[in-house]
Amino acid sequence: MRYEEYTIEGRNAIMEAYRAGKTIDKLFVLDGCHDGPVNSIVREARKNDTIINYVAKERLDQMSKSGTHQGVIAYAAAYEYAEVGDILNAAREKGEPPFVIILDNIEDPHNLGAIIRTANLAGAHGVIIPKRRAAGLTATVARTSAGAINYTPVAKVTNISNTIEDLKKEGLWFVCADMGGETMYNLDLKGPIGLVIGNEGEGVSRLVKEKCDFIASIPMKGDIDSLNASVATGVLAYEIVRQRMN
Amino acid sequence: MRYEEYTIEGRNAIMEAYRAGKTIDKLFVLDGCHDGPVNSIVREARKNDTIINYVAKERLDQMSKSGTHQGVIAYAAAYEYAEVGDILNAAREKGEPPFVIILDNIEDPHNLGAIIRTANLAGAHGVIIPKRRAAGLTATVARTSAGAINYTPVAKVTNISNTIEDLKKEGLWFVCADMGGETMYNLDLKGPIGLVIGNEGEGVSRLVKEKCDFIASIPMKGDIDSLNASVATGVLAYEIVRQRMN
Repeated sequence: MRYEEYTIEGRNAIMEAYRAGKTIDKLFVLDGCHDGPVNSIVREARKNDTIINYVAKERLDQMSKSGTHQGVIAYAAAYEYAEVGDILNAAREKGEPPFVIILDNIEDPHNLGAIIRTANLAGAHGVIIPKRRAAGLTATVARTSAGAINYTPVAKVTNISNTIEDLKKEGLWFVCADMGGETMYNLDLKGPIGLVIGNEGEGVSRLVKEKCDFIASIPMKGDIDSLNASVATGVLAYEIVRQRMN
Repeated sequence: MRYEEYTIEGRNAIMEAYRAGKTIDKLFVLDGCHDGPVNSIVREARKNDTIINYVAKERLDQMSKSGTHQGVIAYAAAYEYAEVGDILNAAREKGEPPFVIILDNIEDPHNLGAIIRTANLAGAHGVIIPKRRAAGLTATVARTSAGAINYTPVAKVTNISNTIEDLKKEGLWFVCADMGGETMYNLDLKGPIGLVIGNEGEGVSRLVKEKCDFIASIPMKGDIDSLNASVATGVLAYEIVRQRMN
């Protein structure tokens, strides 16, 4: 399998990508450049919630592969994102209670890829990631997902807390992985569930944690602080699998 | 934390390292070079089970950081290996049935690091890796272990099958992770146990699998083949933790 990373350079190419409905993760614009075509692209970017970075010419030149960026470079998703609704539909079609994995700022693309792989095999119906700061669906993520990215929908949302609120209305309970919670084996994880995994260094953010119904802790018997984020996701996801099998 | 990788270059430096009892993982020798000092180093390498690679001058020049390799370059372990006996002693000191994780050719240093991290937190008493082909205790492994390498002993053995035979005499049972076995939740994993994890691509080798008492399977509900090796290790290690808590 070969995964292409899409870097789009130049004004026409980027405008075309927006017109074709392609998801642009990030837009880099030459700082101080405000002519007509660039303004149109920035407008399009805002409308599509693309993250816009204004950068110096040296930076753009460095990023450019073609050498003809014309002041704009875009990073497009190697894969198309799904909608949160698609994830709920997938659960409905299978006649299963929804099982969603929500990533509160996973930054390492290898972790994101491994988590999508785990989500697929543990029977989760989809993965939700935030728009800002976190890793997106790049070629590295696609590769480390071992093909799972072709099957498991990944949705990108502006605000994780709001998405949790919306999903609660659909009947989901939320459990986040953190220390100091209830040992995961003692929690009832059978119903419609959202499993929330935090950032590699900082864990689940305070605002997101407050939205969760439970805190699940993995028993820690060692000398160091925490498991790798993708391993922790695997351990928790399979505790959900185990409970659902009973 | 900062982890140094040790590349040792030059005849005296390498001979000194052997005399000091340092573990040399790999030795690169200029092909066709058979003078006295080089022969002494090769003899020392054989005695210590170092893997010897005969390479062309261009390769050595490329690997060399000092530019003065004198026909020999050695890769030393960033961390010292333990003995299998140290792992059993660790279990004995804690008054726990031994729990050992055996890696049948994990090649990716990130996986090895994550597995040592998991071993530490799941309360495994040590990790056993093979001498040939597999990743050793490099600086990358140390880093991805998040410090666990300082606490959890890692032993390196010539032949995994023989080591399993030896450990069976100490009362350990062996379970290997593979498809087509018994679902892990249905196995009794409470006693003195060795958990065997296979290579990223090929799984557990036939000879090693034949030595195992059980094959444990992680339920797979998705579209792709297998979990990432470090995630699979985490899921199985924590099933052992769960059963031991009951």
